[in-house]
Amino acid sequence: MNNNQAWLLADQEINSRLLIGSALYPSPDIMRQAIQASGSQVVTVSIRRQNPGDQSGQAFWQIIQSLGCHILPNTAGCRNAKEAITTAHMAREIFGTNWIKLEVIGDDYTLQPDPFDLVKAAQALIEDGFEVFPYASDDLVLCQKLVDVGCRIVMPWASPIGSGKGIMNPYNMELIRQRLPNTTLIVDAGIGKPSHAAQALEMGFDGVLLNSAVALADDPVKMATAFKQAMEAGRLGFEAGTMPQREFASASTPTLGTPFWHQD
Amino acid sequence: MNNNQAWLLADQEINSRLLIGSALYPSPDIMRQAIQASGSQVVTVSIRRQNPGDQSGQAFWQIIQSLGCHILPNTAGCRNAKEAITTAHMAREIFGTNWIKLEVIGDDYTLQPDPFDLVKAAQALIEDGFEVFPYASDDLVLCQKLVDVGCRIVMPWASPIGSGKGIMNPYNMELIRQRLPNTTLIVDAGIGKPSHAAQALEMGFDGVLLNSAVALADDPVKMATAFKQAMEAGRLGFEAGTMPQREFASASTPTLGTPFWHQD
Amino acid sequence: MNNNQAWLLADQEINSRLLIGSALYPSPDIMRQAIQASGSQVVTVSIRRQNPGDQSGQAFWQIIQSLGCHILPNTAGCRNAKEAITTAHMAREIFGTNWIKLEVIGDDYTLQPDPFDLVKAAQALIEDGFEVFPYASDDLVLCQKLVDVGCRIVMPWASPIGSGKGIMNPYNMELIRQRLPNTTLIVDAGIGKPSHAAQALEMGFDGVLLNSAVALADDPVKMATAFKQAMEAGRLGFEAGTMPQREFASASTPTLGTPFWHQD
Amino acid sequence: MNNNQAWLLADQEINSRLLIGSALYPSPDIMRQAIQASGSQVVTVSIRRQNPGDQSGQAFWQIIQSLGCHILPNTAGCRNAKEAITTAHMAREIFGTNWIKLEVIGDDYTLQPDPFDLVKAAQALIEDGFEVFPYASDDLVLCQKLVDVGCRIVMPWASPIGSGKGIMNPYNMELIRQRLPNTTLIVDAGIGKPSHAAQALEMGFDGVLLNSAVALADDPVKMATAFKQAMEAGRLGFEAGTMPQREFASASTPTLGTPFWHQD
Repeated sequence: MNNNQAWLLADQEINSRLLIGSALYPSPDIMRQAIQASGSQVVTVSIRRQNPGDQSGQAFWQIIQSLGCHILPNTAGCRNAKEAITTAHMAREIFGTNWIKLEVIGDDYTLQPDPFDLVKAAQALIEDGFEVFPYASDDLVLCQKLVDVGCRIVMPWASPIGSGKGIMNPYNMELIRQRLPNTTLIVDAGIGKPSHAAQALEMGFDGVLLNSAVALADDPVKMATAFKQAMEAGRLGFEAGTMPQREFASASTPTLGTPFWHQD
Repeated sequence: MNNNQAWLLADQEINSRLLIGSALYPSPDIMRQAIQASGSQVVTVSIRRQNPGDQSGQAFWQIIQSLGCHILPNTAGCRNAKEAITTAHMAREIFGTNWIKLEVIGDDYTLQPDPFDLVKAAQALIEDGFEVFPYASDDLVLCQKLVDVGCRIVMPWASPIGSGKGIMNPYNMELIRQRLPNTTLIVDAGIGKPSHAAQALEMGFDGVLLNSAVALADDPVKMATAFKQAMEAGRLGFEAGTMPQREFASASTPTLGTPFWHQD
Repeated sequence: MNNNQAWLLADQEINSRLLIGSALYPSPDIMRQAIQASGSQVVTVSIRRQNPGDQSGQAFWQIIQSLGCHILPNTAGCRNAKEAITTAHMAREIFGTNWIKLEVIGDDYTLQPDPFDLVKAAQALIEDGFEVFPYASDDLVLCQKLVDVGCRIVMPWASPIGSGKGIMNPYNMELIRQRLPNTTLIVDAGIGKPSHAAQALEMGFDGVLLNSAVALADDPVKMATAFKQAMEAGRLGFEAGTMPQREFASASTPTLGTPFWHQD
Repeated sequence: MNNNQAWLLADQEINSRLLIGSALYPSPDIMRQAIQASGSQVVTVSIRRQNPGDQSGQAFWQIIQSLGCHILPNTAGCRNAKEAITTAHMAREIFGTNWIKLEVIGDDYTLQPDPFDLVKAAQALIEDGFEVFPYASDDLVLCQKLVDVGCRIVMPWASPIGSGKGIMNPYNMELIRQRLPNTTLIVDAGIGKPSHAAQALEMGFDGVLLNSAVALADDPVKMATAFKQAMEAGRLGFEAGTMPQREFASASTPTLGTPFWHQD
């Protein structure tokens, strides 16, 4: 049972708010099981060089296709707008989708985005008819700029790719959510635990994209189930309206003058 | 569907790891629906003064009984060992259970436990045959002392009752879990959001006890469902073994010399 | 007495690592006293419109001149590269210095920088012979880009201007320090307390620029002295090499087999 | 120059708010220099066994005496009230002071206090005429209890001894300060950096006791100077009244309709 309502991602009706990567799994079969267990309907795949004759590539592709998910190709490893644009075009041809997760890496160590070439590439790709999912830092001005050039979806990071640190700067993230109410916002990169994913949705983000947290878990399939649950928990928590946080404690139990039993 | 295995709480087989309070709900009926939605099988109830003839008490009690849950009476509002011991005995008689959530309040403002009278009362009640669930602070030495006097269950707080601040001191909490591997540890008080509950279980705690986070949500029934999911997510995440957190980012995608597609 | 060594800021020998603003003080005389108490030798001043005949401007200017500090004009309030460049040229003419604190605001609410026009303006001003002090976010790629276009000094924010929140994202800040070892790095904006300033210097930052934390204190002159001390403390702490932080406690006292007294 | 006013510690007029330990220094001479540089007038010393004939003990003692500081003997390593009381009596005889830093260790790993025997020992020692400086956890109820049995001074920890983690739970610490306005409160244990010490004083604590942070620094003498400055900075910051922290940024510069120059 899924407790969440369907939502629209780039005009597609989607039941899950989790977007999941296809790298780093112990085996293709575990990848397949994990993606299924996650409930995700959007799978990112990477293309650095077209290599249609590669046998392992064929096998991988058959698994991906068998899952019946939306494919979200990415431009992982691209270091400038030109590379990313070229890669995006190749991906569109190979995968037959105009969706592209746009990564333009600005630093080889943290793998954080280069805001300059990211915006440039996003603009060019939107003009070319792509549905761009830009991987951004948690900088409101950058996110706003991506919206200004036509992005309907923006994906700020929680923390560096593969760090598993969760949301490093909640202030920035809350601000982005608050200031871009009409943009589909997906937290991408840095999610390490189910509670991180739940927290992102409780803050009102529309989705979460992750890979390492599932693929590198001791038991990726079980972890995928954990994230499925956490996503539903976080979204329901957001919809249910969390209690106000109070600076100082107050008794949750009215202890005087209240009816019998009505105390805790 | 419940993705979690049953576990033993004080020798009782329980499916849910959530213990839930029965105070502060907008109405008895919303309480009933919320407790059902939470999946919890253990409900705390409060008795300050015996008042069997009170009509509202009777109605409340019928609802509680109809839920088929284990009753965990508490000693909320007691300020010293003597009061708490007396209340516990009253509760055992009224509710027909030897379970008691032992609260001995040391400060009227934060409602934090008095470690001194808590240990004293715990010892006395264990000698009297009670199964004591002591509400403690996140002090390892206090928790150890409670184990030393015979508690099989210890319930350290996350933060002050009703504050919704979540786990204030993760260092202390991790230490308690690590050092008391054979004790049933339940995080009690301060949980405000589903992600807080998931975090507690990811740290290896056996359960979570909460009340305000559900009862004071805008939609308590939906929030109860959110917590049900978050508990399952957190437990599965713990069992699945979370990825190691890394201080600096590493690419999750091997981009050179790897088979086609196997990149993200 | 100043316990710190002199350092070079844009080829000028400077004794203090504090750069201080000249806005928001209760009165011009308190401003004068506070700046003197702070020990700062660099004072930021703002020019939005040239207005040489304004009487209050004249009085302010005489105070600033009497302090014998380096003047660091800023481009506060500019919203794009063109405005900032024009303002910088005006400032150079009026104040007779090629130093410019470059602010290009990307968001009216948080007053955070616009990375795009910031880099553009920095490049243009450096070509025009300015010594640019760019006010940046804590984004490594942006800071690197500013260095690439010729900045010898970069000023990442701690948190939003006037928020007093201190360093919001220590991970980002440590990374910037580590990766730009040859750049003069000054933490600008968001410092609220002396301990925040000390922390920035302990992390190896070369200086701190602040305004509100002193000007809006209950006693600005005393607070200026506090920051003077905190800056010296932080720098000395950095130079003295802080002890390694340990995940779990170890006794600081060797209690067995050690000479008498040598225990604590 | 010392910018701080003298204060009363157990009826003694003291200029510095830093209390410093005498263990773990690279050499007795570096200890001497560091303590002098710290400006501290209160030095803790440890006695586990009386050993007056020990030569190294004699040399150490001569150095300590030459510093002209108040001696604060401690009961480091004691694991119950009886040991601590015995050690305190020995210390009073040897050092000729009724001051005692009361440590009763409840856990060999974290070296955190045992609240139960701590209160018991404090009460007994106060009845015996000691001025007790109890090393406590950051538990308000424990601190209050120590006051109730007669302590005029209470020393809650920041974090485990030797961890250098700083103030782990600011909420608890602020609460203790707020609720015990008439008690001399000294932060003891866990301070690792000058900024941590400044933060403690900004919160209104009366003093800081530390040892490892200076003794284990690469340059203990320089670090001692850093802490001297940080203590003064923190106290002045507290007295000067820090600006309110604001959730969202506001421009520190009024940019419209304001007099020329009066903008930053």
